[in-house]
Amino acid sequence: MRSPSIRCDVVIQVRDDLRAMDGYHSAQVDVDVRLNTNESPVPPPDGFRDAVAAEVSRVEWHRYPDRAATALRAAIAEMHDVDPAQIFVANGSNEVLQTILLAYAGPGRTVATFEPTYQMHAQIARVTGATVVEGERAADFSLDPDEVDRIIDAHDPHVVFLTSPNNPTGLVEPPERVQQLLDRATGLVVVDEAYAQFADWSALDLVSEERPLVVTRTFSKTWSMAGARLGYLIGPTWLVSELEKVVLPYHLDAVKQIAGRLALRYIGDMNERVQQLVAERSRISDAMGAMAIDVFPSGANFVLFRPQAADGKTVWQGLVDRSVLVRDCSSWPRLANCLRVTVGTPAENDAFLTALDATLSTLTD
Amino acid sequence: MRSPSIRCDVVIQVRDDLRAMDGYHSAQVDVDVRLNTNESPVPPPDGFRDAVAAEVSRVEWHRYPDRAATALRAAIAEMHDVDPAQIFVANGSNEVLQTILLAYAGPGRTVATFEPTYQMHAQIARVTGATVVEGERAADFSLDPDEVDRIIDAHDPHVVFLTSPNNPTGLVEPPERVQQLLDRATGLVVVDEAYAQFADWSALDLVSEERPLVVTRTFSKTWSMAGARLGYLIGPTWLVSELEKVVLPYHLDAVKQIAGRLALRYIGDMNERVQQLVAERSRISDAMGAMAIDVFPSGANFVLFRPQAADGKTVWQGLVDRSVLVRDCSSWPRLANCLRVTVGTPAENDAFLTALDATLSTLTD
Repeated sequence: MRSPSIRCDVVIQVRDDLRAMDGYHSAQVDVDVRLNTNESPVPPPDGFRDAVAAEVSRVEWHRYPDRAATALRAAIAEMHDVDPAQIFVANGSNEVLQTILLAYAGPGRTVATFEPTYQMHAQIARVTGATVVEGERAADFSLDPDEVDRIIDAHDPHVVFLTSPNNPTGLVEPPERVQQLLDRATGLVVVDEAYAQFADWSALDLVSEERPLVVTRTFSKTWSMAGARLGYLIGPTWLVSELEKVVLPYHLDAVKQIAGRLALRYIGDMNERVQQLVAERSRISDAMGAMAIDVFPSGANFVLFRPQAADGKTVWQGLVDRSVLVRDCSSWPRLANCLRVTVGTPAENDAFLTALDATLSTLTD
Repeated sequence: MRSPSIRCDVVIQVRDDLRAMDGYHSAQVDVDVRLNTNESPVPPPDGFRDAVAAEVSRVEWHRYPDRAATALRAAIAEMHDVDPAQIFVANGSNEVLQTILLAYAGPGRTVATFEPTYQMHAQIARVTGATVVEGERAADFSLDPDEVDRIIDAHDPHVVFLTSPNNPTGLVEPPERVQQLLDRATGLVVVDEAYAQFADWSALDLVSEERPLVVTRTFSKTWSMAGARLGYLIGPTWLVSELEKVVLPYHLDAVKQIAGRLALRYIGDMNERVQQLVAERSRISDAMGAMAIDVFPSGANFVLFRPQAADGKTVWQGLVDRSVLVRDCSSWPRLANCLRVTVGTPAENDAFLTALDATLSTLTD
C-alpha cells in the first residue's frame, strides 16, 4: 500500500507530546472538582442563555453567515473603544494565532517565543512552516531584558510572542518588556492576553496604526464561553485587512457570531465575576503559601505551584484520589514538579485546598 | 513606522482576485432572488430547529467542548456505514482542506488541481506554503486522461484534488478518473464531494484503509446548513489520526457539534429535497437549452451556462436589473462569458428563467 508521508515529523512528535501533556485524556478522569483547564467555574448569566436561544431560533441556517462578522466586530470594538476595522475574529484565539502566522510567518521565516509559555505559539508556528527560536526565562519564570535583546539581535524574528499573563506560569509581563520589543524588534509583536482581564494592566493602550503590535483575546475565560470557541485580536486596521485575506472565507458560523455579540451585553456581571476570581486567587495563593509549596505570583485565573518536598506527579495523583483534578505540568520542559490549578468557585477552591493539605500531610508524614 | 511584510504577496494577490470574483460584495446587491452561492433554497425542517433550540438551552457554555466530537462523528459514521475513526470534522470543508494541506502538503511539496475547479484548493495550498501545479481541462471542462498522466508523471504531486461534481462547472468526474489517480499517483488523492448528493455516483465506496484517498463533504448544501459552517471527510483511520494532530485543538464548538448531529436525523426529508432540486435542475437546464445559451451538464445544485450571442457580464447585469442574482464567472480564468445559477425553489427558478429570457430578448433585439 502507498501511504503518503506527513510533512513534518518533528512537529507531529511535538504535537503528540502536547496531547499527552495538555490533558487530552483527562476528560476520562472521574472527579468531582475539575480545576485543570482554566475555564470559568460558572456558566454565563441566564439572560445570555435566553437571548441566545431566542436569536438562534431565528437563524437562517441555510444561508451563509455574514462573512465580515459585522455586528460582532462592532460590539467588540465598542467595548474596547476602537474601530471595528481593528478587530479580527476567529474560531478561538488559536485560529487568530494561526492566521497571524500564515500571513506573517511561514516557510523561511522566524518566530520567537520565551519559554515556558503557551505551547500553541511554537506549535502553530511550526505546523505553518516557520522556524521557531525559543528564548529562555529565568528560574522564577521572569523574562530578563538581556534575553529579549539577545534573541532579537541574533535572529531578527518576523513574529515575536509574549503572553501576559503568561500561561502556565501566571506571571504578568511588565509593560517595559512589551515596549522593549516594540523598540527593538523589526517584525510583528503579538501579546497574547487570553487572561488579561484578571491582571492589572493590558497592552491594549499601545495598539495603534503606527505600531506592528496586536493583542489577542478570548471569550473562553472571563466570558464563560469556552464551549463557543471564539477569539479575536485588536490591531492596526492595515494588519486586520491582511489577515482577512489569508483566513478561510466564512470561517465564523452564524450562531457563534450571535453568541459572541450577546455575551458582551453582560459586561457588568462579567467584571463582578472577575473580581470574585481575583479575590479567590489571593485566598488560595496565600493558603498554599502557608504549606510546603512554592507559589508563583499570578495575574490570571489559575496559579502555578511546586511542592517543596514532594514529587509533583505524586501530588497530582493524591489530588485525583481526593476527587480534585488540576493540570499536571510536572513533566513539561522547564516546569519540573509544577502543577497548575484553575481558580474555581469558593467551594471548589476549598475542596482543592483541603485535598492538597491532606495529600501533602500523607506524603511528608 | 515599521510595517512587517506579509509573507506571500502572490498568494494575497490571488486572494484579492478571488474576493472580487466570488461575490464577496454581492451581499450588497439588492435583489429578490439570490441564486449565487449554491445554498439550499429552503431552511432545515422545523423539527431540526426545535431540537437544536432544546439542546442549546442545555449547553455548558463555560466548559470546553468535546475535543474529539465523539457524538457527531459517530452520527456521520453511522450514516455512511463506516468507523467513526474514519471521520474528521472541521469548520466547513475549507478547514478540512486546510488541515489536509498542512499535514500532507506545505513548504517544498506539490499540489495538483485540474482547472477550472473550486478555487480554494489552489488558494489554501498556496497560503500553506505548497507549490501548485495546474492541470488543464478541455474546452467542454471534461478531464482528458492524458492530462492526468502528464501532470502525475511530470510533477509527482504530494496531493491531487478532484472535485466531483466539479465547481463551478457542475460536471461529474467519471469514476475512471478517480481510479486512474489511485493507480498512478504516489501522493494523497482528495475527492471534494461538496455536491455529491446531487450526482449519481460517489467515490465513497473506494475509501478504505489500503488507499490514500479521502472524500470531503459539507453540511452547507444538502443539509441546508451553510450558516453552521460544518464539513467533514471520510478516509483511512491512519490518515484521520494524522489530521487530528495537525488541526487546532478544540476547533469545533459545542453548538456546531449539536447542530450537525441533529441534522442527520432528517435524512429522509433531505433526500426528498435533493430529488426536488435534481428535478428542477433538469427543468431549468432544458429551458435554458431552448434559448441561445450553451448549458453545461450538471450533477450539482447549480448550472453553468454561457450566452451564445451576448456578453456574460451584460447578461448578469440584466438579471440583477430584474432582481435575480447569479454568480458572475465571466471574468474568471478559463470561464470567459460564463454565469452560474444555483437551483432554487420552483418559484425562484421561474423568476430566473423569465428574467433570463427577457434579458436575452433585449440584448439580441
